[in-house]
Amino acid sequence: MNPQNKRKPSNEQVSELTTNRLSVYLRCLNQLESAGVNTISSQALAEQFHLNAAQIRKDLAYFGEFGVRGVGYYVKELKRHLRQILGLDRKVRVAVMGAGNLGLALADYPGFRREGFEIVAMFDVADAKIGDESRSGVPIFDLKELKKIVKRDRIDIAVIAVPAESAQPVLEQVVAAGIKAVLNFSPGTLKQPKGVKLKSVDLTVSLESLSFYLAQGIDPEE
Amino acid sequence: MNPQNKRKPSNEQVSELTTNRLSVYLRCLNQLESAGVNTISSQALAEQFHLNAAQIRKDLAYFGEFGVRGVGYYVKELKRHLRQILGLDRKVRVAVMGAGNLGLALADYPGFRREGFEIVAMFDVADAKIGDESRSGVPIFDLKELKKIVKRDRIDIAVIAVPAESAQPVLEQVVAAGIKAVLNFSPGTLKQPKGVKLKSVDLTVSLESLSFYLAQGIDPEE
Repeated sequence: MNPQNKRKPSNEQVSELTTNRLSVYLRCLNQLESAGVNTISSQALAEQFHLNAAQIRKDLAYFGEFGVRGVGYYVKELKRHLRQILGLDRKVRVAVMGAGNLGLALADYPGFRREGFEIVAMFDVADAKIGDESRSGVPIFDLKELKKIVKRDRIDIAVIAVPAESAQPVLEQVVAAGIKAVLNFSPGTLKQPKGVKLKSVDLTVSLESLSFYLAQGIDPEE
Repeated sequence: MNPQNKRKPSNEQVSELTTNRLSVYLRCLNQLESAGVNTISSQALAEQFHLNAAQIRKDLAYFGEFGVRGVGYYVKELKRHLRQILGLDRKVRVAVMGAGNLGLALADYPGFRREGFEIVAMFDVADAKIGDESRSGVPIFDLKELKKIVKRDRIDIAVIAVPAESAQPVLEQVVAAGIKAVLNFSPGTLKQPKGVKLKSVDLTVSLESLSFYLAQGIDPEE
């Protein structure tokens, strides 16, 4: 089967977990490419990165037939396809809401840029910050200019890094400015806006998983 | 069955996904408690928070029998048990490595404190930062003092928020100082140290999942 024949997935069929796994595969392929590896089997990919070979084959087969019998996957090819599936074959333009420590850290996070995300603007309400820029040169605009700049800079995704009490009103402004995908770092719950993909990152969950391991006294070696 | 009879889970049996789900349940119970809810069925819990009722029952049954026939779960009781399972029934003491924007943001992240994590120290190598403190009052120490302060302040978990090129040496210093659980925010891969639980948070994965939704044009409403 030709990769061009890929089925259009529905929301029910492609879970968040699947897209997360595709991201992980892409990260692994980046490493393999840097190491000069040209082809890899699902089995070797699974062993090297502690993944599940059957799951890899299932996830990838869903989007087309990328493996070659007796060879496995061509690293460069598969990487290109994954980037296409994940929408990274074009620049994805991101705005960061809030120019506090977290916002500044996210604006300058080197991983984003490397994967094709372009942080084009930050927004804040503090006069002292507006007109300034992050260390890597992301300009900080007045929140009042959000609508204008979202349109001018064709911003795809907004990242919310404002204090918890401002998160809901900022989300509403972002949605009113026409943004369709939002990544929220503020603690607490936001109302799901209609027609917008909202994803929240709760940093506490990761710490709790470590706390669990310490509490249960589980041997961290698999 | 009595909750005291809980089985000691092995690493194979309790996956990271399970502990992540326990964290999510705890987050939901916090909300229910704030809203004055006393009891809830797995079905209602699932519906209210878009979870899977069978999965909830399975996850919780694994640690003991917390539900009561005809009643469901007592919110306060289940919350107390979950906090105990997750090791949050005592203060968990955390150090943040690196007092840059990300480190400062993590040190002051309100979600950590609320769940019982105590950020007791930050470490850096820059003279200009050492002796200073974060906005919420977390002191910044010289990295050279790590071993001494880990012992003195009984630090359980280290959070790595240093630039990518320093992450591996900092991880080694943290492990040498006797810390058994590490949360890494630096992009790139770290060597898994023996006898230490290392968890990496890749912020790019969340952005890629949004990019996927934009690229596929999937309706974000379930």
